Formats: sequence, structure tokens, C-alpha cells
Amino acid sequence: MILIFMIPSIEWVNNKVKMIDQTVLPHKLEFLEFDDYRDVATSIKVMNIRGAPAIGIAAAMGMALATLEFKELPKETFLEEMEKAADIIRKTRPTASNLFWAIDRIWKIISSYPDNPSNLSELVIEEAKLMAQEDVNVNKNIGKNGASLLDDGDAILTHCNAGSLATVQYGTALAPVRAAIEQGKNISVIADETRPRLQGARLTAYELQYDKIPVKVISDASSGLIMRLGKINKVIVGTDRVTSDAVFNKIGTYLVALAAKDNNIPFYVAAPTSTLSLHETIKDVTIEQRDSIEVSNVLGKVQIVPDGVECLNYAFDITPFRLVTAIITEDGVFSPKELLKQYK
Amino acid sequence: MILIFMIPSIEWVNNKVKMIDQTVLPHKLEFLEFDDYRDVATSIKVMNIRGAPAIGIAAAMGMALATLEFKELPKETFLEEMEKAADIIRKTRPTASNLFWAIDRIWKIISSYPDNPSNLSELVIEEAKLMAQEDVNVNKNIGKNGASLLDDGDAILTHCNAGSLATVQYGTALAPVRAAIEQGKNISVIADETRPRLQGARLTAYELQYDKIPVKVISDASSGLIMRLGKINKVIVGTDRVTSDAVFNKIGTYLVALAAKDNNIPFYVAAPTSTLSLHETIKDVTIEQRDSIEVSNVLGKVQIVPDGVECLNYAFDITPFRLVTAIITEDGVFSPKELLKQYK
Repeated sequence: MILIFMIPSIEWVNNKVKMIDQTVLPHKLEFLEFDDYRDVATSIKVMNIRGAPAIGIAAAMGMALATLEFKELPKETFLEEMEKAADIIRKTRPTASNLFWAIDRIWKIISSYPDNPSNLSELVIEEAKLMAQEDVNVNKNIGKNGASLLDDGDAILTHCNAGSLATVQYGTALAPVRAAIEQGKNISVIADETRPRLQGARLTAYELQYDKIPVKVISDASSGLIMRLGKINKVIVGTDRVTSDAVFNKIGTYLVALAAKDNNIPFYVAAPTSTLSLHETIKDVTIEQRDSIEVSNVLGKVQIVPDGVECLNYAFDITPFRLVTAIITEDGVFSPKELLKQYK
Repeated sequence: MILIFMIPSIEWVNNKVKMIDQTVLPHKLEFLEFDDYRDVATSIKVMNIRGAPAIGIAAAMGMALATLEFKELPKETFLEEMEKAADIIRKTRPTASNLFWAIDRIWKIISSYPDNPSNLSELVIEEAKLMAQEDVNVNKNIGKNGASLLDDGDAILTHCNAGSLATVQYGTALAPVRAAIEQGKNISVIADETRPRLQGARLTAYELQYDKIPVKVISDASSGLIMRLGKINKVIVGTDRVTSDAVFNKIGTYLVALAAKDNNIPFYVAAPTSTLSLHETIKDVTIEQRDSIEVSNVLGKVQIVPDGVECLNYAFDITPFRLVTAIITEDGVFSPKELLKQYK
């Protein structure tokens, strides 16, 4: 069957970084093009691009732009400028581990290059492009593995956006949905709106509509009733980190998992192996607290609480393994116990 | 101790109905005054006033205004006009049972009045004022009974607004908080924002801030983590209807109850006996579905989903008795089992 896929969130085109501007979604599909790594850094900071895998690739491509800018400099000055570029990009989003992973990977090439930098740029550009391709490959494998869990006619609940827009393309939590549809199954999605930043309502709904995959949006408060009423059969969410006892994902995930358990609905987590951090446990992880204003002021446009009332804004949720049916990686589908056996 | 209480949401003043305009809260505290029952009906419809107990009183006072308007008419024409008024008021919010209850109670006086209507108006006005006073008395008793469950230093999670603004004054779910503070206990509140209409963020935060009771707001997705982190000790919510097996309350209540259970936190429901409908079970109740736009467009001001994507907007949630620790009525505190024994 022919299926239109949501276009890549980020690409290397004619020695420029081209990305979808996610801040204006779902109302406009606009692209940004950068030839200066400083602008790429800003785009990560202001969230033109977001999603851990996607901003990792943005960081790598930003580094590639920097090599183009500085490749005619003598080696020592070149390295100084590249250090500076890496530093600026690293500081954009201090909690996104993929940012550091991506820069480290690019840095290995730079630091091991024996000659003058003039030809290094080609190598770094190729590496950044390879990383983008690898991301899509990982996601396609998650899709293939996850699709085996989905039946014709299934309605899937997801939380936040772990879709194409959070990766280079194809997504993690939404990959099994796309793959199952490619296999000819009828699959529909119900997306939690995902307060405070509404990635479910804005981004998941947008990219599924783009791909002509049936999608409806609900308030985060509705998932329990939706399950009770039999409106969904399975839950699939993404993750930012998997420890040896829990899955860390967008705030609200724990409530969805509790409701799934109470309604005997499978709760699946799509996790590229890059998110596995199995040497850690719940107590090793600090939950990021973000600015009160993300809750008090919806998308910076409507103030919903009285002046002077503080909002607590924890960004991530802790979902213990006992609530997780299985974890889908690019290698297969694993119960939490099997996951530990496979990767620890 | 001296405590300022949130002023009444509705009052009968100089033969007019005076109410807080809840549509402009929390940004402005403005009052509306009506001497025409048709305007009172509109105020219920557009939700200048909301909350089942409060709109019941608005309906009664609207009927009282109608008696003033028509009391010089001959009895037959008077009754025709009053029937019309009752009909207009009934149609404002078709699902609010208190509306029908209030009109029925007023109608009993009208229909049993033996003489010409000229003096009837006084009786109806007195009845409406009495109903308002009764509402406050019920709430104060719920407060007294519920306060016995609260300890000095408790932090209470609540969902939606079952506060002063949902009643004439003092609230139902927030009554135990007010009463415990009157007893000298230190109590603070964390309010779920309560999408889609944000009654928690707008109204609960407003009235508690008004009363100088410490309050913070969270997104609905956050309640589970808040409990895990030990930020709250008890949950108190209101209810629209209690059947013999479940509590019906604002969408999202079921998720809060699941999280409370999973974290061994008591989950209390404040329920005036007027909400008890113990001859019914879950399957007798139809969950109201409201317009998609309440979800897709935050407070009518910010569209958060792509054009063409539908939102499911169920207004109420089903919380089975197995998740309820106790129900607080004006008569006492009852486990679900005791409640059935007491009232069925």
C-alpha cells in the first residue's frame, strides 16, 4: 500500500541545515534553513526543533556547519573555534542526553583527524548525515517490532509526541502505528493533549493527520474514562530514559499506565537502545522542574491562574516497571525482566 | 482565629439577583445584577455562574424575579407566564439536576398558593433566600465533618472547583479545608488545573488565594508524580452524582483516585446528600459529551489542535467505590459501604 510519511523534521541540504519550525505547528508548516551553527543552537534553545533524537541530529549538523566555517583556519585555531561551537550547542538544552551523545560522536572524528582541517569537513558532514539515517533505521526497526503487537482495528492511545517530529523521521512510539498501517492493518490513534506544552494536541495530531492516519485528541484527564469506555485497545508511549526499575517519560505517563493496568490494557514503551540507562535506578534520576509560566500561561498566550499563584511544573513522570507490559527496542520486544537480561 | 471567606457567588439584594461573573475570573472580580429572569437564565447558560448547587439557587432566584414581574396579572395569566419562565430556566443547562430540583421546590409554593398572586412574590423570594442559606449550612456541616479527617500540616489535592464559587458559599470539597483552618490547623492545597475549562486553575486558585489559603496549581498530568514525591497527604473532590457503586465527578477524577490508591493516600469525596442517587448504578448514567472546541480551543482563545482534528470531550468521570476511602456528607463521614447502609 502507498502511504505518505511525515517529512523529515531535519535534513542536511546543500550545506545547510533545514528543519521544520515546530513552534508554529499545527497552524503552519514552515521550514528554517541555517548555515551558521549559532542559529542552529538558538533553534534548539527556542524549540523550533525538539525531541531528544531530533535535537541530537541538530547538534551534529550544527557541528558540521561549524567545520565548514572554520576549515580554512590553522589546526590549532580551528580546534579552538570547534570547542567553542560544541560548548554553545551543549548549553542549549542542558538535560537532553542526545545532545551530548551527538557532539561526542562528532568530536571523536575531529579529534582523531591527523591532517589539516581543510578536508575534515566532508567527514563530519557525512557522519552527521549517517547519524540521521541511523535514527530513521532504528525507528523503522522499532516500528517493525512493535507492529507485531498491533491487531487490525486497534485504537492506540499515546501521550506527548514521540513521533516523526521528535526524531528525524518515523518516530518511536508512533513507529509501530506506521508500520502496522504499512502492513495493511487499520489502526487509529487517540492522542493525549499533553499539558503544559501540548505536544500531543499540536504535534502528534499534526503528523498523523499529515500521514492520513485517523487521530483524535483528548484532554490528559480523559485517558482513564476512554479506556473504561473501550475506546482504545493498547497504549504506546516513548521514553527519555529507562532505568533498571522504571521508565521516565513526559509528565502524565504514570497516570496513563495506572489506568491501563486497571483496565487490563497493554502498556508499551518504545525505547531506542540509546535511551537505556540500566545501571541507574529511580533514585538516581532528578526530575526536571520547569518554569511555572508553562502551566500558568498556555503557549504564552492565555493566562489561566490568578496573578501571584505559583504552579508546580515537573516535566517528567516515573512509571515503575510493574505497570509496563513490554518495551519495544530496535532489537525486539521485551518484558521489563527480559530487557534487563538482554541489555544489563 | 479570623478568616476572610470568599464572598457568596450569588445573593438576593434589593429585589435583584447579584452574582460574581465567573467568566472573567481569575483576572477580575466583577458582579452582575439582574432584575429580569431572562437575564438570569442567560447567565446560567453562558456560565457567568456554574457549579450544580450555585445554579440551583440562581434558578430559584430567577423564578423569584419572575413572580415580581408578573404578580399583578390575573392568576391564570400569572401561572402561564411562570410556566414559561420555568421552562426558559430549565433549558439553560439540561444536565444540571439542581436546576430542576430548585424549580420544582419553588413551583410547589406557586402551585399551592390559594389566593391571587399579588402576595405570592414575598413567599417565593423568602424560599429562594432560604434555599441559599440551606446550601451554606450544608456546606458548613460538610466542612465540620471533613475537618476531622485533616491533620495540622496536611497538603490537600483537589480536582476542578467544588469550592465557594460552585455553591452559594464555603464549598463542598473545599469546606473541610476552610473548617480545618478555622480550627487553627495549617492546611495547604494543590489544585489540578482541570482541563478543558480550567476550573481548578481559574476558580479554585482564585477563591483560595482570596481566603489567604496557600494554593499551588498543577497540570492534570502531574497528580501522580506529586503523590509519589510526597507533596500531598490527602485528596478531596466534589461530586455531581453518587450512585450505589461509583462517584461521578469532573473528568480526570478517576485518574486521581487511581494514583491515590497506588500511593496509599486517602481519597475523600465531599457529597451533599442532594447528590446521592443510590437507586442508580454506573450503567444507568450517561456521561455527557461536550463540544470538541472546549478541548481544541483553550478558553476560546488559543487553538491547540490542527484544523480538522476532532477532540473527544467527555465531561464526567466514573470513580468506582473501590477507589473511594470515604464520602463526607452534611451528616457525617461514611465509607462507601456505610453510605449505602445509611441512605439507601
